[in-house]
Amino acid sequence: MYDIIVIGAGHAGAEAAYNSARMGKKTLLLTMLVDRIAATSCNPAIGGLAKGHLVKEIAAFNGLMPILADTSAINFKMLNESKGAAVQGTRVQIDMDEYNLNAKNILLNMDNLDISQELVDEILVKDNAAIGVKTELDKSYYAKKIILCAGTFLNGLIHVGLSQIKSGRVGEISASKLGDNLENLGLNRKRLKTGTCPRINAKSINFSLLEIQESDESVKGFNLKALPRIKQLPCYIAHTNTNTHTIIRSNFDKAPLFTGQIKGVGPRYCPSIEDKINRFASKESHHLFIEPQTKEANEYYINGFSTSLPFSVQEDMIRSVKGFENAKITRFGYAIEYDFFNPQDLFHSLESKIIKNLYLAGQVNGTTGYEEAAAQGLMASINAALAIDNKEPLILRRDEAYIGVLIDDLVTKGTNEPYRMFTSRAEFRLLLRESNAIFRLNKYAYECALRNEEEYKYYLNLQANIKSALNQLCNTNVVPSKVFNELLNSIEEENISQPTSLQKIIARSSMTRQKLLALCPQFSTLSEFELDEILLEAKYFHYVKLQEQNIKDMKELLEIKIPKDFNFNISGLSAEVIEKLQKNKPENLFEASKISGITPAAIDILQIYIKLKA
Amino acid sequence: MYDIIVIGAGHAGAEAAYNSARMGKKTLLLTMLVDRIAATSCNPAIGGLAKGHLVKEIAAFNGLMPILADTSAINFKMLNESKGAAVQGTRVQIDMDEYNLNAKNILLNMDNLDISQELVDEILVKDNAAIGVKTELDKSYYAKKIILCAGTFLNGLIHVGLSQIKSGRVGEISASKLGDNLENLGLNRKRLKTGTCPRINAKSINFSLLEIQESDESVKGFNLKALPRIKQLPCYIAHTNTNTHTIIRSNFDKAPLFTGQIKGVGPRYCPSIEDKINRFASKESHHLFIEPQTKEANEYYINGFSTSLPFSVQEDMIRSVKGFENAKITRFGYAIEYDFFNPQDLFHSLESKIIKNLYLAGQVNGTTGYEEAAAQGLMASINAALAIDNKEPLILRRDEAYIGVLIDDLVTKGTNEPYRMFTSRAEFRLLLRESNAIFRLNKYAYECALRNEEEYKYYLNLQANIKSALNQLCNTNVVPSKVFNELLNSIEEENISQPTSLQKIIARSSMTRQKLLALCPQFSTLSEFELDEILLEAKYFHYVKLQEQNIKDMKELLEIKIPKDFNFNISGLSAEVIEKLQKNKPENLFEASKISGITPAAIDILQIYIKLKA
Repeated sequence: MYDIIVIGAGHAGAEAAYNSARMGKKTLLLTMLVDRIAATSCNPAIGGLAKGHLVKEIAAFNGLMPILADTSAINFKMLNESKGAAVQGTRVQIDMDEYNLNAKNILLNMDNLDISQELVDEILVKDNAAIGVKTELDKSYYAKKIILCAGTFLNGLIHVGLSQIKSGRVGEISASKLGDNLENLGLNRKRLKTGTCPRINAKSINFSLLEIQESDESVKGFNLKALPRIKQLPCYIAHTNTNTHTIIRSNFDKAPLFTGQIKGVGPRYCPSIEDKINRFASKESHHLFIEPQTKEANEYYINGFSTSLPFSVQEDMIRSVKGFENAKITRFGYAIEYDFFNPQDLFHSLESKIIKNLYLAGQVNGTTGYEEAAAQGLMASINAALAIDNKEPLILRRDEAYIGVLIDDLVTKGTNEPYRMFTSRAEFRLLLRESNAIFRLNKYAYECALRNEEEYKYYLNLQANIKSALNQLCNTNVVPSKVFNELLNSIEEENISQPTSLQKIIARSSMTRQKLLALCPQFSTLSEFELDEILLEAKYFHYVKLQEQNIKDMKELLEIKIPKDFNFNISGLSAEVIEKLQKNKPENLFEASKISGITPAAIDILQIYIKLKA
Repeated sequence: MYDIIVIGAGHAGAEAAYNSARMGKKTLLLTMLVDRIAATSCNPAIGGLAKGHLVKEIAAFNGLMPILADTSAINFKMLNESKGAAVQGTRVQIDMDEYNLNAKNILLNMDNLDISQELVDEILVKDNAAIGVKTELDKSYYAKKIILCAGTFLNGLIHVGLSQIKSGRVGEISASKLGDNLENLGLNRKRLKTGTCPRINAKSINFSLLEIQESDESVKGFNLKALPRIKQLPCYIAHTNTNTHTIIRSNFDKAPLFTGQIKGVGPRYCPSIEDKINRFASKESHHLFIEPQTKEANEYYINGFSTSLPFSVQEDMIRSVKGFENAKITRFGYAIEYDFFNPQDLFHSLESKIIKNLYLAGQVNGTTGYEEAAAQGLMASINAALAIDNKEPLILRRDEAYIGVLIDDLVTKGTNEPYRMFTSRAEFRLLLRESNAIFRLNKYAYECALRNEEEYKYYLNLQANIKSALNQLCNTNVVPSKVFNELLNSIEEENISQPTSLQKIIARSSMTRQKLLALCPQFSTLSEFELDEILLEAKYFHYVKLQEQNIKDMKELLEIKIPKDFNFNISGLSAEVIEKLQKNKPENLFEASKISGITPAAIDILQIYIKLKA
């Protein structure tokens, strides 16, 4: 009897198993292939816009993905560097072999964690509650909680041109029974589609014709403690051209995306190249990012070139690109369709509303992306472990974490296409910087026993220092004295002409750590990390104030629970609104407010009726 | 249009592709999964008795396996150390991840070699000659020669207890179309069975209760030039007991080997544990060799414990072994059935007699073992490349190489069980030491352009030095003079009492490099390698002389070709002999003499009739 069984060892499953074991729960991780634990099926990179935030938030819980990413990173980049710090995103290219092997070795070596190489055929259910799993080898395992992280493996079907292959990932078997079993158990099964790009043999690329992008080694990794770095390698940029587009267009009749062969909806924000050519017909060129797959750099991933056109067409397409005239494809691009389950059937804890004790995380919930998967794996394991201890689930709010936004979006709105995180999805994004993830989540990590007391207090102390410094800056008013303006001049800052708070001066975009210290020598005992945070907090001070009222509103709505048996058939609400509320069964008014088509007026009416009932 | 297409990238396919490309042939390697190139499906070790010889012979051709083995070796051992040098075998435990990744990186980076991740569905044939392949993605590739190295993937069917899984290796897809296609093309398809052992999580083993076996770092690697060594780790020995045997015996009714569920014949010399318990009922204990799978040693392979009993029984079995009371299986043992093709339908070149230009290597020919596979992959690629250049095939004789024995056995006798190499199969085994593999095969490697002239001459020179030294030893007669016996005394050697050749003294088993130099100071300019060879050559001098007549006989028989249209229906031959000859169609009298049931008398009769016809 286990506490928790995790099905699948991709990015969601590996993260779930890692944290479940760290929370002291006796955990079993079932994977089809031990050697492919945390395999990177698609691009060899972790992080990116908004995704970097997710990884930093996982790091705030001392999670697995940040460790794997940093120890296998071969190229560091800060995306959106010219924009505000809140929407910048760390991205690292990784050595996919190192990543995968490190994951295997870490998990094999963990306390509380067993790993067995078995395919799950069935969830064992009793009285609408999951009690275990049955594997293909006719072996049954029992547990208090089950976390399903099957990725694209449930009835995975690969498309390349007119060919279809039953496969969960290219070259690997698909799980044919579990998807059907879950539907029979009452889960609402749907289909989605995703795709991946061809990989090219490095020796067949003429790199001298490509634009180089060196690693920016000044960029910090994801893990809170800096980890040793391996070899750094450049990436490259190439460009499609009108010839490429003509080749693609003239093969639309062989594109499974257009022939009706693919039923599932694909990721709108990560479209295939044929989709891009179709939708943006007037565009004469698209960027391609040429990314090394490993530190040996024998293969490159052609990011931006996702395709399910026939293999021969893929060859013609890539060879039309400058630098790729003699390109040899080692692994073709393909599209894959797979089962997922409506995430609106989940509680915010990621537990299924339909089958008790069953949690779902990752692509089975309709998301795309390694980071989105790992974030869900983390939360599913935390909530499964908390539930075993009869504790309340940890539901991160939208103003606390991108993870909160991700899960709230999924659970409240559902998704009809692979859901990907963006900074624009986070209405409180100015609060949710990568750098303050630890301060936002430190307490939760500590309470879940995912951070020890010493570390917890260490970061608490840093946070207090920053807050105290910020208070000083806000409360210190300076006047345009000769002495002070000479000080400003000495650090190449513009004079002030009227009394102002130090915070306003520090908020200037030209401000640096050195200048901050010149103005506030009392901060010289603080670390670089603290100084950087002070600069950012000063900069975002007023935006943050503006968002506070929104957060207050949200918290109030969150506190107004909707009774389980509440009758939404209320006069004053439209039939459409009533239907949506009945279908989604929101747990509180905030959830109700996030359902598409539910107006603020409807929320006001609901609020009145709930108070009347109370 | 390629010169050579290799289907499958296991140990046969990787070796074939590596050498085909090195011989300057434009080569395409097709694999289901680039990340599993040269994966070690079974035990994490290369070499062993007779198998070490095969790897040293591959090294004589500068092949791939010796490089991979040495660069990933984590434990060195010389087997049969107490026996004669000729039958000693080098074995290294390898880090299976390093092995596999090194293979991938070396092959991806080679000139003349393309790699594509595709499953082959069909061999394209025209006028009974292979002209190309068609893949699952409906892509066709054309080549002058095709080498089939599909391993256990053709209609692979895994058995564990009563469960059956279609799979080419656990967790990986099986090739369902190619086997049928080859049968339709006229190849004689049969089924074989092999099996593998459970892997145990290291943290669940009590190593203090096991017997330790340290790495013997003095043992040389396989490659001719010493390669840098990685971390060295110990292996362990454990023992089954009567309790283990009772558990196994009481589950015979669930053993697919005994229930009739498995039709294919398994490897007699590498039996499953249930087979051992069944056949050697009186034995109270069997050895188990506990081998680390990687340098991180998070999993151990339980060599000697191959089984296809149900997973729960496997758990009970292993937990009955001392040190394994709390063992957790990470990967279960299993049996696998797969298609192979009668190797008697091959020429000695490994080209099919049924489909021209199609070569077969590895498990598809009914062998078992990584080394046997690689040896065939090497020879198939050499002979395919030679044929493209309109050169005679390279057929290694039984007195020249274990590779010669292997292929001659397969082609002449066929096999009804997975064929494994043994020193006992080599009647000229005293000639075929690991250490002289380079001298036996140097010339062939050079002629095939697999060794450059400089290296070739370097080893030729060593060989000449050894031969000249041996001649000196044979031609130098010493008398029992006081001076000479004092010299012998000074090196702690027994006196001589009558005139003798120096060779006879050097042949003593007590002889060492230091003693040799004391007796023959003129050899002080020679390398350790040369001195060791001189010691061995002196020792085996008389045995070698004895084998020379046999070799002469064999060469004579080899030279007597049997005409293609020869009518074996000869009076004087028994019906049985005639039938066997008609079926096997031997190419020469030596081949005929190796067919089981063909007597020396029958060979004499044949010889007369052939001479009459000539």
